[in-house]
Amino acid sequence: MSEVTRPTLSDALTERMLELIRTGGHRPGDRLPSTRELSQRFAVTTPTLREALRRLEATGAIEMRHGSGIYVGADIERLVLPNPNMREIHAAQLLELLGARIVIEPPLAALAAEHAGGEELSALQRVLDEAGRHLRGEDAELHDANMTFHRATARMAGNSVLNEVVDSLLTVHGPEQREILQIFDDRRRDYEEHLAILEAIEARDAAQAESRMRAHLVDVKTVIEHRLQSPR
Amino acid sequence: MSEVTRPTLSDALTERMLELIRTGGHRPGDRLPSTRELSQRFAVTTPTLREALRRLEATGAIEMRHGSGIYVGADIERLVLPNPNMREIHAAQLLELLGARIVIEPPLAALAAEHAGGEELSALQRVLDEAGRHLRGEDAELHDANMTFHRATARMAGNSVLNEVVDSLLTVHGPEQREILQIFDDRRRDYEEHLAILEAIEARDAAQAESRMRAHLVDVKTVIEHRLQSPR
Repeated sequence: MSEVTRPTLSDALTERMLELIRTGGHRPGDRLPSTRELSQRFAVTTPTLREALRRLEATGAIEMRHGSGIYVGADIERLVLPNPNMREIHAAQLLELLGARIVIEPPLAALAAEHAGGEELSALQRVLDEAGRHLRGEDAELHDANMTFHRATARMAGNSVLNEVVDSLLTVHGPEQREILQIFDDRRRDYEEHLAILEAIEARDAAQAESRMRAHLVDVKTVIEHRLQSPR
Repeated sequence: MSEVTRPTLSDALTERMLELIRTGGHRPGDRLPSTRELSQRFAVTTPTLREALRRLEATGAIEMRHGSGIYVGADIERLVLPNPNMREIHAAQLLELLGARIVIEPPLAALAAEHAGGEELSALQRVLDEAGRHLRGEDAELHDANMTFHRATARMAGNSVLNEVVDSLLTVHGPEQREILQIFDDRRRDYEEHLAILEAIEARDAAQAESRMRAHLVDVKTVIEHRLQSPR
C-alpha cells in the first residue's frame, strides 16, 4: 500500500455525500442513511466511507451520533468556521484577535441599534442580568454570560455572515477569553460597559452603541497589553 | 458493528496528532512520520488512523500528498477557515456576504493606508496592472486579479486575523464572485474604483481609502441587488 492511498476516492465520496444532502433537500438536523446503506449506495468499503464521513464531521457538515446515526450538521450552511484544531493561542495572536474584534464588533453594535426587535432587546437584557448574578461567582459562568452578550449583539445586527465571523472569533479562543477575564479583573467595569452598550442599543443610538463597543474592546485590549508587558 | 463506531478513538487520535505536531515544534510544510510509523506509534489500525488524518486534512491542519507523505498544513495556525463544504451560494447569502465585506473591508483599507510598506504598495500596483491587462480578456483572469487586489489590501492592514476573515469570505464564494463579475459588467468602472483606492492608500489618506473602499463595495452590492430584482 502506498503511503497515502485513495486521495481522490475520499474526495469523490465527500462530494457525493454533499450532493446527496443537497439534492435530497436535507436540512441541519435531518437524519441521513446509515453507514451500511451509504457504503452499498456508493459501492465502497466501510473504512473508505468513514474517511469521507470524518472529513465532513470535522467541518460540521454532518454529525455522527454514537449508536444513533448520521445527521446533517448545523454548520453545513455556514460560510466561515472557527478552526477546530486551535488548542492554544499565543499572546500576540490574542492581541490580534482583539484587534480584529475592535474593527468588526463596533459597526455591528451600530447595526444592532438600528435593527434590534423588542424581543431581542429583552433577551439581551436577560443576558446581562445573568452576568450580574455571576459577578461574584464562578469565572466560567460569568465568561459564558459575557460571550453570550457579544454573540447576541452581533446576531442583532442582522447579517448572518458577520454573525458567523464573530461567533468564530469568540469560539476559537474560548479558553483564552476566560483567561482574559482573569487578567482583566475589573469585572464590574466590564459589566458596566456592557450595560452602557445595551442602553445605547435600546435608545436606538447607533453612533453611541458603536463608540461604546469600540471603547469597551479597546479597554480590554489595553489592559491585556499592559499586563502582558508587566506580569504580576 | 454499531452504526457509528469508535467516535472517541478517532477524537483521541486527532488530539494526539495535534499534540505530536505541537510538541514536536513542527511548522507548516514540515514532514510528519508516515502512516505506518503513526499507526505503530499510536497502536491503531491504518483505517482508524486514516479517519483521524482525514479530519485533520479537511480542516487544513495536515496535507496528505499522494505518494509523498504527510505534511503540516498551512492552515493549522489560522483562527478562522472558509467552509470547505460550500458548493453553491444563494442570492440572499451572496448579498449578506457583500454586506459583511462592506463592514469589514473599508476599515482595513484605512489601516492599509496607515501601515503599508513601499514594497507592498508596488505589489498592489502590479496587481492592478495585471487586472488592467485582462480588462478585455478572460473573466477568470480578471477575477483572480481583482480578488488578489482585495486580499492584498486586507493583508496590508497588518492584522492576521482580519486577513484570515477576508481571505475566508473571498475564498468561500470564489465561483459566485466570478458570477458577480459577469453581472456587474462595468469592468472598467470596477477597475477605476480599485485604482482610486490604491491612490488613497499610496497618499496615506486613511479616511479616503476607507470611504472609497466602502463606496466601491456598496456600488457592487447595489448593482447586484438591482440585477437580481430585474434579471435580463
